[in-house]
Amino acid sequence: MRVKIKLMYNGKDFCGYQIQQNLRTVQGELEKVLEIIFKEPVKTFASGRTDAGVSARAQVVHFDIKEKMEMKRLLSAINALLPEDVAATSAEIVPDSFDARFSVKKKTYRYYFYVSKFTLPLFCWAARINDYSDLDAMSEACKYFIGTHNFKSFVTTRTDKTDFVRTIYDAKIIEVASGLYAFEVTGNGFLYNMVRIIFGTLVSVAYHNLKPDDIAKIIKKRDRAAAGKTYAASPLVLYSVEYDENPTKK
Amino acid sequence: MRVKIKLMYNGKDFCGYQIQQNLRTVQGELEKVLEIIFKEPVKTFASGRTDAGVSARAQVVHFDIKEKMEMKRLLSAINALLPEDVAATSAEIVPDSFDARFSVKKKTYRYYFYVSKFTLPLFCWAARINDYSDLDAMSEACKYFIGTHNFKSFVTTRTDKTDFVRTIYDAKIIEVASGLYAFEVTGNGFLYNMVRIIFGTLVSVAYHNLKPDDIAKIIKKRDRAAAGKTYAASPLVLYSVEYDENPTKK
Repeated sequence: MRVKIKLMYNGKDFCGYQIQQNLRTVQGELEKVLEIIFKEPVKTFASGRTDAGVSARAQVVHFDIKEKMEMKRLLSAINALLPEDVAATSAEIVPDSFDARFSVKKKTYRYYFYVSKFTLPLFCWAARINDYSDLDAMSEACKYFIGTHNFKSFVTTRTDKTDFVRTIYDAKIIEVASGLYAFEVTGNGFLYNMVRIIFGTLVSVAYHNLKPDDIAKIIKKRDRAAAGKTYAASPLVLYSVEYDENPTKK
Repeated sequence: MRVKIKLMYNGKDFCGYQIQQNLRTVQGELEKVLEIIFKEPVKTFASGRTDAGVSARAQVVHFDIKEKMEMKRLLSAINALLPEDVAATSAEIVPDSFDARFSVKKKTYRYYFYVSKFTLPLFCWAARINDYSDLDAMSEACKYFIGTHNFKSFVTTRTDKTDFVRTIYDAKIIEVASGLYAFEVTGNGFLYNMVRIIFGTLVSVAYHNLKPDDIAKIIKKRDRAAAGKTYAASPLVLYSVEYDENPTKK
């Protein structure tokens, strides 16, 4: 039986999602807990890894169990055993054809920020951009990311990937709460550091070091050096993962 | 010359707002900084104290300075010297008749919470109420607090106050961001622990241990034991303080 769970975690004290020996990872903590519950190792599969320091509101993970179990009971058991900075928010039985990684249709990330000359104590986990920032220019620049592009300019040079083509369905600046903003981006997939580099490039636009339509030129260059700096990991949150409603066996 | 500043602080590591010997307080940190800037002690006056652990988005403070100074420069100096968990967000010259405490017209507090069977890592600073909570009943109960009432049922018994009459202009449940709620209450003043006890009583309504119209009966009783429990300090934020636009000398 295949189980799909959603995980929320605060990435601050994790060395990323993916299991690594001798390091504290979200997958490591989850598999430790599942091994206690099922009395044997359980291999888990996530929608994708998140970098060290990145949080998730709704990471999606699947794993297989051998015997029927009430999902409410499983959810309570998982949460009773997980540490405080990670929690399962839902658990459901899904068809065997569901694959948390390969059935992904869309992923949405949010990069949280605020606009101030000074560090604001209540928003200190978000990125600060200066009070002379031009949010309209930033919003305008977002539009140039939408579409199917080669994002080689927006990936860390420390990558083993060779396919840099991704489709961005939506990219915009939203006011999440009074004074707190987010760059929200939805796509079919994201490269290593991609959202953090895009955000750094948007900040260059906000500071008038780049014009909104420079984004199109930077994309065309396929050169990491043409884009802005990689912003910090902590304000980044994997916000949601969408799947096909009727997944078919692949 | 009288200066009005707004302060934002994370209350977590403070023993409240008001200065106390040998304890870390917001006022203590501020006056330390002002003494460095002005090379003599500067007495400050806030809109009111906040309890240990309570945060502020916009606490208002006034103090007098002897010589003219550019407010932008003062603001930068204060923020350069304050610790990370407190910041000044504005500074302006005001008429001598302005008094941060006695000119207050309205104060607004927010008590943040979320609704879940489990602790949610990204909302862990807010209060958690259980997933069977009835938010409609909670909203209905809010209305009974509006008006001028004797709030003796909603004050800690450890108080030296004798006047318990306060006017509540507005009280409601709002969704601040997706999945994050706040009880927002505006009044001409609040008693010691009042918002935290009101919130505890609203939770009793959310859990169907009280009916919304029981609030009217509890207010009439003038008995702390009739109300709900005092909720934690950390999800409480002094959200804003409003003053008369044309303050007159008192």
